[in-house]
Amino acid sequence: MNLDYQNFYRGRRVMITGGLGFVGSCLAHQLVALGANVLIVDSLIPDYGGNLFNIDGIADRLRVNIADVRQQSTMNYLVRECEVIFNLAGQVSHIDSMRDPYSDLEINCRSQLTILEACRYNNPRAKVVYAGTRQIYGRPDSLPVSESHLVRPTDVNGINKAAGEYYHLVYNNVFGVRACSLRLTNVYGPRQLIRHNRQGFIGWFLRLAIEDRTIQIYGDGSQLRDFVFVDDAADAFLRAGADDACNGEVFNIGGERPISHRDLTTLLVSVAGSGRVEYVAWPAEKKAIDIGDFYADSSKFARVTGWTPQTRLEAGLMRTIEFYRRHFDRYVDASASQGLA
Amino acid sequence: MNLDYQNFYRGRRVMITGGLGFVGSCLAHQLVALGANVLIVDSLIPDYGGNLFNIDGIADRLRVNIADVRQQSTMNYLVRECEVIFNLAGQVSHIDSMRDPYSDLEINCRSQLTILEACRYNNPRAKVVYAGTRQIYGRPDSLPVSESHLVRPTDVNGINKAAGEYYHLVYNNVFGVRACSLRLTNVYGPRQLIRHNRQGFIGWFLRLAIEDRTIQIYGDGSQLRDFVFVDDAADAFLRAGADDACNGEVFNIGGERPISHRDLTTLLVSVAGSGRVEYVAWPAEKKAIDIGDFYADSSKFARVTGWTPQTRLEAGLMRTIEFYRRHFDRYVDASASQGLA
Repeated sequence: MNLDYQNFYRGRRVMITGGLGFVGSCLAHQLVALGANVLIVDSLIPDYGGNLFNIDGIADRLRVNIADVRQQSTMNYLVRECEVIFNLAGQVSHIDSMRDPYSDLEINCRSQLTILEACRYNNPRAKVVYAGTRQIYGRPDSLPVSESHLVRPTDVNGINKAAGEYYHLVYNNVFGVRACSLRLTNVYGPRQLIRHNRQGFIGWFLRLAIEDRTIQIYGDGSQLRDFVFVDDAADAFLRAGADDACNGEVFNIGGERPISHRDLTTLLVSVAGSGRVEYVAWPAEKKAIDIGDFYADSSKFARVTGWTPQTRLEAGLMRTIEFYRRHFDRYVDASASQGLA
Repeated sequence: MNLDYQNFYRGRRVMITGGLGFVGSCLAHQLVALGANVLIVDSLIPDYGGNLFNIDGIADRLRVNIADVRQQSTMNYLVRECEVIFNLAGQVSHIDSMRDPYSDLEINCRSQLTILEACRYNNPRAKVVYAGTRQIYGRPDSLPVSESHLVRPTDVNGINKAAGEYYHLVYNNVFGVRACSLRLTNVYGPRQLIRHNRQGFIGWFLRLAIEDRTIQIYGDGSQLRDFVFVDDAADAFLRAGADDACNGEVFNIGGERPISHRDLTTLLVSVAGSGRVEYVAWPAEKKAIDIGDFYADSSKFARVTGWTPQTRLEAGLMRTIEFYRRHFDRYVDASASQGLA
């Protein structure tokens, strides 16, 4: 393993927006271990994934600033000292974005402009790594999906995430605020929000298995996806933040191999030793924004930075289940577990 | 010429957002001539192109409602009666979008959500035709540029216009609000704003030629563009609005042939019989967002609707110059003509 990008962070001043969330907090754990000077900025908006327990064990070795990244004067101040900004704040629910498109616009578009304008005028030497998403590709024309695939979002969230990504590239190219985007596929692992099922199915499936409940699969479960373990995703952010060869570029960050929902859930139930699977018809609302098979070609990022996913799906699921079993009450309100038998 | 799409508009209730602007008012003239029941919605924000003189001659045969399309309750009310909405309201200055990205976000992103949400909840049977732009392609990978080219905007305006277009496609696909987008290349013709030079170079060049001033060309003038006469662009909107085969699709609307800035300005000075050309070095600010050669492949729209540009560049420039010479004071404040010798 190339250790240069890890040494890069020793004593480095970094900001993580959305740093109390799933991927952001994992990144915080890695950065603290590497000796970085970490500032987390998070608004802790209920239901969006921020959780103070996510920094349990490192809370005394970093700073947390509760703030909304849409607030310009706050961001103008906070970016001044940062050398690298990992920009992960966002609203990730596709269903919510179709119910309330304006909030999604505010959080996924306007907030990016706020962060980038703060850098433009107050710290143009900062490097920004944006958390993009494979969702912007929509239904693939061909597989695996590389970065040369058309951007064709199927929902408002995907549109606003695409715009947020484009802003980063324009600020890189026009204003010299170095920036790049990592288009994450399905990330799974410890510290993901599992209180409700509006932030991706993998966390919800994990919860259902742990609770020995029934996992519902839409259709025949043949649709393919790729899954990246959160430690590997965080490692991708570290590499991108340290490497100026990434500036102005977009990169897919995908999993080790595609797997069907059917095989995934079979594996999950097997690893958990609990839960079961049931196949049901597609709800119309979800079918309308489904994209069929999807898996990413991550070879561009591998070529530039040497990154490859290190964690096999079986091992990642095992570690995730162990984590949630140990800390279940930190991620699920007892009162909300109405499904518990 | 296929007259069906023209007969379609007889007695039809149509709305034109941005209908006091350049392309919108040309469309209003055509729709009034076809016997449509036209409602113009325009905010008349200074510097954005809306001009009451643009409906001179037809003002008593349509309705004008001054309103901002970002105002939800207004749009909820106004869309109720409309069968076709030509959605042309927008901020078109690239330079302005880089100076004030938030205003561009409001006007080019949020406003589209307002219009589409109004339709979703108050008139889901409306058909919406959106004025997209070739600007969203950025610097082309290959020429001519077809709709399968990547969207890769080079400025904030291009990003927000791309998001505005994507919203229309998602509302078509998910909510059944029929919509399509026409990606216009460089439109020219009567009624364009020529008071300042921040809304595209072609109108400004026309004004300079008419005033017998010097047209500055950046670099050697070899960069290629295609130009579509405003009557032809308006005809494309009429066809798209009448044809459900366009729903959910994007279409390039380009000119008859590519032409270099050098040849264009030579032709313009020749047709006008006034003005001259000077070659100067690229200003850094403009070079940073320049895209090199660009011309569009419009064959997809031709295939679906039968549209082709009918107006030769020479004839279009002639008609445009005649129009501005006749109505110069309506488009240029005498006090602002500091460049007049």
